[in-house]
Amino acid sequence: MKVFIAGIDGYLGWALTQYMTAKGHEVAGADLMLRREWVEEVGSISAIPITNREDRIAAFETQFGKSLDFRVGDLCDYEFTTNFLAEFKPDAIIHLGQMPSAPYSMIDQKHAVWTQINNVTSNMNLLWAMREVVPDAHLVKLGTMGEYGQPNIDIAEGFFEVEYRGRRDRLPFPRQPGSFYHLSKVHDSHNTHFATRIWKLRATDIMQGVVFGTQFEGLGDAPALRTRLDFDQCFGTAINRFCVQAVVGHPLTLYGAGTQKRGFIPLRDAMRCLTLATENPAEKGEFRVFNQFAEAYDLTELAQMTKEVGDEMGLAVEIKHYDNPRQELEEHYYQPDRENLLKIGYEPSTDVKSELRIMIKDLMQHKDRIAEKMDILVPDIRWDGTRRRSQAVAETPAQH
Amino acid sequence: MKVFIAGIDGYLGWALTQYMTAKGHEVAGADLMLRREWVEEVGSISAIPITNREDRIAAFETQFGKSLDFRVGDLCDYEFTTNFLAEFKPDAIIHLGQMPSAPYSMIDQKHAVWTQINNVTSNMNLLWAMREVVPDAHLVKLGTMGEYGQPNIDIAEGFFEVEYRGRRDRLPFPRQPGSFYHLSKVHDSHNTHFATRIWKLRATDIMQGVVFGTQFEGLGDAPALRTRLDFDQCFGTAINRFCVQAVVGHPLTLYGAGTQKRGFIPLRDAMRCLTLATENPAEKGEFRVFNQFAEAYDLTELAQMTKEVGDEMGLAVEIKHYDNPRQELEEHYYQPDRENLLKIGYEPSTDVKSELRIMIKDLMQHKDRIAEKMDILVPDIRWDGTRRRSQAVAETPAQH
Repeated sequence: MKVFIAGIDGYLGWALTQYMTAKGHEVAGADLMLRREWVEEVGSISAIPITNREDRIAAFETQFGKSLDFRVGDLCDYEFTTNFLAEFKPDAIIHLGQMPSAPYSMIDQKHAVWTQINNVTSNMNLLWAMREVVPDAHLVKLGTMGEYGQPNIDIAEGFFEVEYRGRRDRLPFPRQPGSFYHLSKVHDSHNTHFATRIWKLRATDIMQGVVFGTQFEGLGDAPALRTRLDFDQCFGTAINRFCVQAVVGHPLTLYGAGTQKRGFIPLRDAMRCLTLATENPAEKGEFRVFNQFAEAYDLTELAQMTKEVGDEMGLAVEIKHYDNPRQELEEHYYQPDRENLLKIGYEPSTDVKSELRIMIKDLMQHKDRIAEKMDILVPDIRWDGTRRRSQAVAETPAQH
Repeated sequence: MKVFIAGIDGYLGWALTQYMTAKGHEVAGADLMLRREWVEEVGSISAIPITNREDRIAAFETQFGKSLDFRVGDLCDYEFTTNFLAEFKPDAIIHLGQMPSAPYSMIDQKHAVWTQINNVTSNMNLLWAMREVVPDAHLVKLGTMGEYGQPNIDIAEGFFEVEYRGRRDRLPFPRQPGSFYHLSKVHDSHNTHFATRIWKLRATDIMQGVVFGTQFEGLGDAPALRTRLDFDQCFGTAINRFCVQAVVGHPLTLYGAGTQKRGFIPLRDAMRCLTLATENPAEKGEFRVFNQFAEAYDLTELAQMTKEVGDEMGLAVEIKHYDNPRQELEEHYYQPDRENLLKIGYEPSTDVKSELRIMIKDLMQHKDRIAEKMDILVPDIRWDGTRRRSQAVAETPAQH
């Protein structure tokens, strides 16, 4: 299949480019290279060293013996988007090209508004461009499990059958996202659903859990093939942050009580799932929602597992609670469905500890560069719109 | 109370400025005067002649014996918004300052994206500005009944108690809006709900039905006090369009079967409701949703009533069905709640025919200026992204 990857330079995008090429698909993609700027803006670096675009393309060409059409461009530029799609004529468009951080979106008014405008515009442009030039293509849109928030009922996949005052309907599952970033993804979901209804586009909306890991199937040896790994408060996801903290001897930073539950998925599984979704497209006019995660855990369990693996590997890992910079329920019900991907062949990895071992081993090689960034391991972006570094607190702080 | 009206120059805004001033409130407001440009862009005019800003302010001052702080400015400009609110320190902010037309948002990619960016940014700016300079103020935000779409169950007011797989929760009522404009209001609702949760702002989200009418309580005699009335396909709402068509002898334009049901509210009731919501503010941290309409009707009933009143008044009114430029269910269940406003004292007007008589009489005086715009009375903006003038069709065309 011809696959267009929006956000080809990112954590998922660069890995998926290689994974899908190895599976025999023809990949092209675009990126505005902003992730590199955001991470610099928040004072951090990728723990795994990454190369520039030219070196990435060269390494790709050496690895796979074919060229890669990887263009620098802005999906918010409708002409750029339409022209690229018209030229490449993809069967599938995998949309990973957005600002993906909750804390970054909460920094201030400017970051909040920019996040929503950027994410909503890029997604709307893709929808309009699909309608105009590739109406039969399949959009695989990256959303987040965070769109659902923390309801006190099971989380269905996108839609649920509900009985209300004696009548029944299948309705979109209510969304209660927890940051301006998560809200932008909810807006995208509503816009995409609408476009499938009125223009008969095909779309799969991926409610992805928290991704972790450094490796994926088929990753070659050249350093330029490695994908980034972030560990700062904005772009570092929970397990990735924990592993980096374990490596440099910083306490693992649990926010609040650490009893928050989330769905998690190893990077290697995310590659499989996105490829399965692409290879099994939605019907014309169908808006399909996949909850994409391997298992649900609470953050304390994951910190404990990181500590156990780290301790085994000779690191003395400490876990500390910090006052929670976010506003979220810490004790809550969490039972999300995860059936749609299983139906098309996804077999979830459940051996988190093996993945942690691989990651920590990978990261140990870059301990020195990470150690230079010790000062950014504790969050200071707060949901009330202020900046204040979180403080270590007693083990079970009061619920927010 | 000190009331800030965003969109003070609009159909509702200019009327509300007078209505609330007459009730003893101190009003100030802002407008970028874009409604006048949009209506010109789609080739139309206000059926009721309106004056420029300076004449409006002068007439207001004569009528009420006090000055009016009515500034030209953009809510998408955060500094303008924050400075105005910091200076005026309102108790309530009534947000009517957005692009309000479904067809306008469906013209093309540019209009769709612009609508969402403009509406979402202006609302986010108000939320951030409230947090920064007037955190105790109450936001009364204009949404639309169209946010809910056409579910097959009763439409609750914003939230509903649901039982799912043996567990219960109170959740946001699912939204299935029918245009990029309606979607922008859904985005605003989600953003506003979030801001009340994290910043403890007060907000009332008004899911308003289709407004019609030319009159409101306390309207003075000076022509500059009159509020606009649109009748084009974008900014003219159903009953307003019907009355204008009746006056100039154009067939009333029913889209499709005309069996679509909607909540409707006379302009005079909208003034009462917005004022009641303002005078009975939400609690700190509360996100309250009001379904604001007087009665639900199907479009055929309203066209029939317009015909009956028109015929009584000596106009020979004809009703015609046109192929539906929108994509919507024409036969559908429609049972929205409307309790929250009744609880704080709203008594709905139910005598639609009296209102129609008043409107038609008002509009007869401007028959000649409207007659010059006969060519724009049939819609040509289609939900598939193309332009094609709707054609008159047999009485019950196939459902879309």
